[in-house]
Amino acid sequence: MFRKKDLLGLKDMTAEDITDILDRTVSMKEAFVGGRQLDRLSGKCVATLFYENSTRTRNSFETAARVLGARTMSISVATSSVQKGESLIDTGKTLDALRTDAIVIRHSMAGAPDLLAANVRASVINAGDGMNEHPTQSLLDLFTMREKFGTIKGLKVVLVGDVKHSRVARSNIWALSKLGAEAVVVAPYTLLPRGVEELGCEVSTDIEEAMIGANVVMGLRIQRERQKAGLFPSLAEYNAEFGITADRLYGICENALVMHPGPVNRGVELSGDVADSPNSAINEQVTNGVAVRMAVMDMLIGGR
Amino acid sequence: MFRKKDLLGLKDMTAEDITDILDRTVSMKEAFVGGRQLDRLSGKCVATLFYENSTRTRNSFETAARVLGARTMSISVATSSVQKGESLIDTGKTLDALRTDAIVIRHSMAGAPDLLAANVRASVINAGDGMNEHPTQSLLDLFTMREKFGTIKGLKVVLVGDVKHSRVARSNIWALSKLGAEAVVVAPYTLLPRGVEELGCEVSTDIEEAMIGANVVMGLRIQRERQKAGLFPSLAEYNAEFGITADRLYGICENALVMHPGPVNRGVELSGDVADSPNSAINEQVTNGVAVRMAVMDMLIGGR
Amino acid sequence: MFRKKDLLGLKDMTAEDITDILDRTVSMKEAFVGGRQLDRLSGKCVATLFYENSTRTRNSFETAARVLGARTMSISVATSSVQKGESLIDTGKTLDALRTDAIVIRHSMAGAPDLLAANVRASVINAGDGMNEHPTQSLLDLFTMREKFGTIKGLKVVLVGDVKHSRVARSNIWALSKLGAEAVVVAPYTLLPRGVEELGCEVSTDIEEAMIGANVVMGLRIQRERQKAGLFPSLAEYNAEFGITADRLYGICENALVMHPGPVNRGVELSGDVADSPNSAINEQVTNGVAVRMAVMDMLIGGR
Repeated sequence: MFRKKDLLGLKDMTAEDITDILDRTVSMKEAFVGGRQLDRLSGKCVATLFYENSTRTRNSFETAARVLGARTMSISVATSSVQKGESLIDTGKTLDALRTDAIVIRHSMAGAPDLLAANVRASVINAGDGMNEHPTQSLLDLFTMREKFGTIKGLKVVLVGDVKHSRVARSNIWALSKLGAEAVVVAPYTLLPRGVEELGCEVSTDIEEAMIGANVVMGLRIQRERQKAGLFPSLAEYNAEFGITADRLYGICENALVMHPGPVNRGVELSGDVADSPNSAINEQVTNGVAVRMAVMDMLIGGR
Repeated sequence: MFRKKDLLGLKDMTAEDITDILDRTVSMKEAFVGGRQLDRLSGKCVATLFYENSTRTRNSFETAARVLGARTMSISVATSSVQKGESLIDTGKTLDALRTDAIVIRHSMAGAPDLLAANVRASVINAGDGMNEHPTQSLLDLFTMREKFGTIKGLKVVLVGDVKHSRVARSNIWALSKLGAEAVVVAPYTLLPRGVEELGCEVSTDIEEAMIGANVVMGLRIQRERQKAGLFPSLAEYNAEFGITADRLYGICENALVMHPGPVNRGVELSGDVADSPNSAINEQVTNGVAVRMAVMDMLIGGR
Repeated sequence: MFRKKDLLGLKDMTAEDITDILDRTVSMKEAFVGGRQLDRLSGKCVATLFYENSTRTRNSFETAARVLGARTMSISVATSSVQKGESLIDTGKTLDALRTDAIVIRHSMAGAPDLLAANVRASVINAGDGMNEHPTQSLLDLFTMREKFGTIKGLKVVLVGDVKHSRVARSNIWALSKLGAEAVVVAPYTLLPRGVEELGCEVSTDIEEAMIGANVVMGLRIQRERQKAGLFPSLAEYNAEFGITADRLYGICENALVMHPGPVNRGVELSGDVADSPNSAINEQVTNGVAVRMAVMDMLIGGR
């Protein structure tokens, strides 16, 4: 059974731990989709501490907490006393003193969740730290794949796009390799981190070659700011070279599951018809995101 | 019985539908004023999706949802991923995937709620779209009139002010005419939309003539930005020509109910003594707003 | 028994009233620390109306309200219709019409809570008004002292720092003198208000002399803006002259309780080792803040 204080990343978790969380997610999804209000976390408090904005991720975590019966407290850097120069550790100790049971943290600095976790009594859940990890996003991706194919083992998963700046890609590469899947990353050279193959994946700059035999094709979000930085010439050219289009999907791997962490830039990472096709699991990923976060919170702070 | 998926506007509703909602509002108001916490929407989620700011309206909807036992989720354009270029439809599909039961939308573009409603499973409630409609505001106005006079039929209702930019005026004109009341709009020519009489109302530019025999005098909010645009010379002159003053009220229609959607610009649409007089229903409108929104939510998503 | 409509300040309260609140806080703290979800305020609504930002204080009040089972409504000036020129009284009447049971107000203008309280049905709780009072902060300070020493009477309490701009200092000086403690304020001349000794305290500009025999040493927060205004030369010099350092603490009053309303500027008001020492009650103050606010809300609006 997965028994830790915190969920900081998938790199240091075992395949068994990951599987435990995915197993627990099944019943959580049933409850969530069935509109059941649970009380497993009644009297508990979950704080979201976001040093980077993300309404999507925050809403997903808060929904998970509240369906389980917890109170939520929302702290964002733009309006909180962290602006007054309060250190991350002091903020954490204040949350401890407010009897917070779990802190969901997003921070631009890799390792911030680990620093926090080492200094607070509360459970810490990493909701994205710099370019390091985003473990619950990866867990919901894995759950979505397993739900579709019954198993992760042996799948060929192609991750396309801005691998260099993607914490989702890193978490997924660690986890897929642990669970016996084959991960292939595809990107322009400028968006591939050096030594990425050492994470346990294959590397390609040819999307069509990479898609041969793929079970899953996952688009990674392109930040428009990267274009200004000269890392690719234009969104249209990016789409021509690396876009997951209907031609490529139906021509090369017509039964592949199409995934994306959202929100999709239609016509950039994916064409609109692919995003809306039966192959697309994009909306299911959102639902599974709540379920997997319910499972994580329940395992970390339920019944304590 | 009113049985629809969405509440988009009053233009296309029947008098029976409107009356059904007002009837249901009676018991909702009793519960709300009595401080009762209900559980009719336990396990349900109501999202407020506001592309224009309005703390008043948002708080009213969230209070209604929570008194009924629903969870609420608040999304405003300034902090959400809609800024990242996510389309309205994709945002709606994400809310569907988060198992949202109702989406309360305010948008600067007329028709946005209809577009959303056609593409999501959730019930959509229009909380104001451009210069089109604001149906729950009109429903609370109607409920307030009915509570005072016992019926809407046969009332003379004078709407004074910025009719051109007022979605409240449009919804009210549709509804009053359906329910057999006489609507008269009064405004400077610059704030009267062309062809407004075709909506089913009389038109005047003389407030004192219009107020003769009025049962209800409703001020419409003046946006100070309109003055900069040259649509009227100054707030003081606006008040002199079109203000609902004590002299006018007690001299012309001393028993008329005075209404305003709030917040009032004292000394502009209404003089302060009128706003605070026994004729004023302004605060009662706020209470009725919660009750009518409870009724709407209960009819749209309760017991589904 | 403390029976008032509002909590506006400690200046006009009796020692008995203050003691009543501290007594009630004991059981509230037990419930809060024990993770119990209460229902004493079920069906009630507590609004936080903040004209100045403070995530810490707002979260403390909202936690208190929700642990007692109340709904909360959060209104901040940056996003609400108070920006549209709505007056404080009209905002209060709207909150009354929304059936708000208590309004927690923070305002830059001294006396704003009194003005509001005189015009609304709801109970008003002052969460800080200008440079006047911050009564719940003082109550939590008193509770923390009483918890440590068993009584307030006879304690020597040294308040160090920006007394001039501190509403916390003012509330504490009133209350300590009522309860029979000795209050000494220490600050540079530029941060001492004229006539401060008339509040009922002694005044010093020598921290080391003042700390002799102290039971409590409380740092007051230094706003960096004051430095720009030339009220002290630099943060480092402030710390050298007025900082609560380990040398001073252990050399002069080694058993004194160290307090601070937070967030601490480490190395300015307090050195980091003092903030983290066993003498420090800083985190306990945060916990006690929730408990004392629970007690206040329960006494004002519970069982009404």
